[in-house]
Amino acid sequence: MTSLTGTLGSATPNTPPTPAARLSSLQLTTELTALLDPDIVLTDPTLMDNYRWDWARDPNAGVPLAVVRPRTAEQVATAVRWASSRRIAVVPRGAGSGLSGGSSAVEGGIVISLDRMRAINIDPHTRVAIVEPGALNAEVKAAAREHGLWYPPDPSSFEMCSIGGNVATNAGGLCCVKYGVTTDYVLGMDVVLADGTLIRLGGPRLKDVAGLSLLKLFVGSEGTLGVITRAVLRLVPAQQPPATMVAMFGSVLEAARAVVAISRSVRPAMLELMDQASINAVEDHLSMGLNRDAGALLLAQSDVGGENAATEIATIERICAESGAYESFSTDDPKEGEAFAMARRAAFVAIERKGSLMLEDVGVAIPVLPELLEGVRLIGERNGVAIPTVAHAGDGNTHPIIVYNAADPDSVARASAAFGEIMTLAISLGGTITGEHGVGRLKKGHLPDQLGPDVMALSHRIKNALDPQGILNPGAVL
Amino acid sequence: MTSLTGTLGSATPNTPPTPAARLSSLQLTTELTALLDPDIVLTDPTLMDNYRWDWARDPNAGVPLAVVRPRTAEQVATAVRWASSRRIAVVPRGAGSGLSGGSSAVEGGIVISLDRMRAINIDPHTRVAIVEPGALNAEVKAAAREHGLWYPPDPSSFEMCSIGGNVATNAGGLCCVKYGVTTDYVLGMDVVLADGTLIRLGGPRLKDVAGLSLLKLFVGSEGTLGVITRAVLRLVPAQQPPATMVAMFGSVLEAARAVVAISRSVRPAMLELMDQASINAVEDHLSMGLNRDAGALLLAQSDVGGENAATEIATIERICAESGAYESFSTDDPKEGEAFAMARRAAFVAIERKGSLMLEDVGVAIPVLPELLEGVRLIGERNGVAIPTVAHAGDGNTHPIIVYNAADPDSVARASAAFGEIMTLAISLGGTITGEHGVGRLKKGHLPDQLGPDVMALSHRIKNALDPQGILNPGAVL
Repeated sequence: MTSLTGTLGSATPNTPPTPAARLSSLQLTTELTALLDPDIVLTDPTLMDNYRWDWARDPNAGVPLAVVRPRTAEQVATAVRWASSRRIAVVPRGAGSGLSGGSSAVEGGIVISLDRMRAINIDPHTRVAIVEPGALNAEVKAAAREHGLWYPPDPSSFEMCSIGGNVATNAGGLCCVKYGVTTDYVLGMDVVLADGTLIRLGGPRLKDVAGLSLLKLFVGSEGTLGVITRAVLRLVPAQQPPATMVAMFGSVLEAARAVVAISRSVRPAMLELMDQASINAVEDHLSMGLNRDAGALLLAQSDVGGENAATEIATIERICAESGAYESFSTDDPKEGEAFAMARRAAFVAIERKGSLMLEDVGVAIPVLPELLEGVRLIGERNGVAIPTVAHAGDGNTHPIIVYNAADPDSVARASAAFGEIMTLAISLGGTITGEHGVGRLKKGHLPDQLGPDVMALSHRIKNALDPQGILNPGAVL
Repeated sequence: MTSLTGTLGSATPNTPPTPAARLSSLQLTTELTALLDPDIVLTDPTLMDNYRWDWARDPNAGVPLAVVRPRTAEQVATAVRWASSRRIAVVPRGAGSGLSGGSSAVEGGIVISLDRMRAINIDPHTRVAIVEPGALNAEVKAAAREHGLWYPPDPSSFEMCSIGGNVATNAGGLCCVKYGVTTDYVLGMDVVLADGTLIRLGGPRLKDVAGLSLLKLFVGSEGTLGVITRAVLRLVPAQQPPATMVAMFGSVLEAARAVVAISRSVRPAMLELMDQASINAVEDHLSMGLNRDAGALLLAQSDVGGENAATEIATIERICAESGAYESFSTDDPKEGEAFAMARRAAFVAIERKGSLMLEDVGVAIPVLPELLEGVRLIGERNGVAIPTVAHAGDGNTHPIIVYNAADPDSVARASAAFGEIMTLAISLGGTITGEHGVGRLKKGHLPDQLGPDVMALSHRIKNALDPQGILNPGAVL
């Protein structure tokens, strides 16, 4: 039990030895299984391996005591209540597509996987989706579409990421530049607190200021404050078919300057950037005929419909030309536009063929984007690693993708150095270490550099007030 | 000093007698004045009377020890640090236009009025306004407009309410139905905590998920968690000139049903409702030629521009007709449209000529709007009070306005009964006791009915973690 105590100890160093430390793993899992259906509690190591990592493949992920796969919120509450009584770590888990190690298993803790709780109810009159946390983002979008409605947040992983994970990380995506992030669509949630109490926050009301904004506090808390068992999501009328523009620039700096100018005058529904390395990776992968010599590409969409969309796209195209674009292309054919959006979405997969990846997620105020992108380029050069970069440029949120050779310790070391340097650069530019992926375990060490000691202390006060034993996702974020 | 101890005691009943209780008021104000500029600390009772009430005119407002009118965030921090050391209540105050008694003075406490801190800096490249809390909403809008930008949140009181108050209450307004509420535009803030620490949360970044969502927790906290000294507000490109529609219905129910149908298919930039009594009050006041026989009026605007706006308004007009509107009128002339919007905005002032007012702010999911409005009508009948109602109908947020005679105790009693019954009704319909005005002191007694004991307990845990002495706005919200 040393490792368990150690893990929890690092979250709450002054914790005395716990009752759990006097029971064997077998005694503990027998207790837990007796409280829940046996079919809900996995203890087979091979089966549990499916629930130990997210996409960050955290090498420090522990071996859990058990994986709990509840079917109801009551079962989640039972599991957490038991973990609380035994002072055992709880790691909530959605679809496991997180990129920051936020759902790495903790040694000797339990993983609560919400993958069986995926009911979706659309209420078209109230214009909300009432969703269990394991439902995929794409499933919610599809269910809404059947009623002519739309759930906007669209992480690049929308086809495989869960709503619970989206809410827990306050996930972003491509349309956020106009439509905002997950928190803007969360009207209510059910959440199991650290002591196993199941509470309901908010509800299907578009405006509600009764009491403290607890709902918003839980959004983005990455499993450190509670386990989300239900979300009430705001839906909006279906988006109009978009018009699309692609512009090619000689350099990333010119493209970034175009983004600054575009943001001042119009509200595109998408404004994405790809640099030369990512363009080439996608071209290697998909052979779309993208210009390999381009220093950068900007992809913009307008969804204001008809003539207005044509006008908006023409404005964006003109600004791109004024900012130095040497070539551009626009279309009001949604299918043709989707092909370009696909190129952007395929970037991760295309770059993954080049080697192992460390995914960055740094963001800055839009005017500082050129400096950030130039700085990333220099960090790549200095450390001798390729860092193709794609960006939700209209939000100032960039994804420098560090490519390295996992079998070569020197390559790993250089990639790790670059990973840290990029966060340091973002902070020095007044930016953030994470725009949409979350802090998890991967970026935890850099959070104090961004927030400073006073905000860290305040965060710990909140965490301690809500989870005094430190059992919820210990080791993540704080 | 009994009353001071009593006041704080009610917020934290187990508080032992405080050091402050051993000093006279004169000794305390002398101490405070020595720490700050004398010109910043008011102790003259007549001058202080300007800072004891907000628009709720809370009869229980206390006489403060002093009113502090700081010029800088450091002075705010100094005042709070001193209050913390002396365990004295702090009531933050913006423009005093609050409607829930959230800034009623506390007996023996200090009022911190932010009315001198009103600098506004627009950064058009970053598309943010960096604003001190005393700046008026209208001043921020005007400053943004000079750069072709727009700050959307528009409480009806936008010409006299402060940004600090807007953030503290998470204020809404007329355009929220499409553009969201204040919290959606707050990217960062500086806030003085209960111990006088000045911290900075967030910043000019459109996406930032680094750490807990503390920023959103402070929005809407009504001065109970800290004193906001600066806000970084997101601006968007200027709104296009709106097209406007007005439709007249035989009954409120028909109008409410039209709202439900409209919300499903389009996103109007404004969707307001006035009932017969409020139409007549405005007509008495402004003689605009409104139809006094109409049971209700719906006012909608579209800001999508050009042909599209005409199409959107035509859709809304068609839905109104299908829902029973017997007359409608539409215009793409923004001035003509603004005249109708003025009629809606003038409702409070017009109704105020009928007597003293108790302003409700209850909200429900849109499909329940007809039931809420019918219930309010019955409550008015049962209690023998007039309750003209206006509503941000597209948000399900209604303002039943109870008219009473303040000189007649029986009328006051009947109005108070109706005030409570309306909140009970909203809660029974799954709604909220306050959509945008805040809980303050006026609605505090009803908050547990809406939130329930578990969420109240959680709120108290947060409050106690951030303000263990209970000095920040005691008696408000919790």
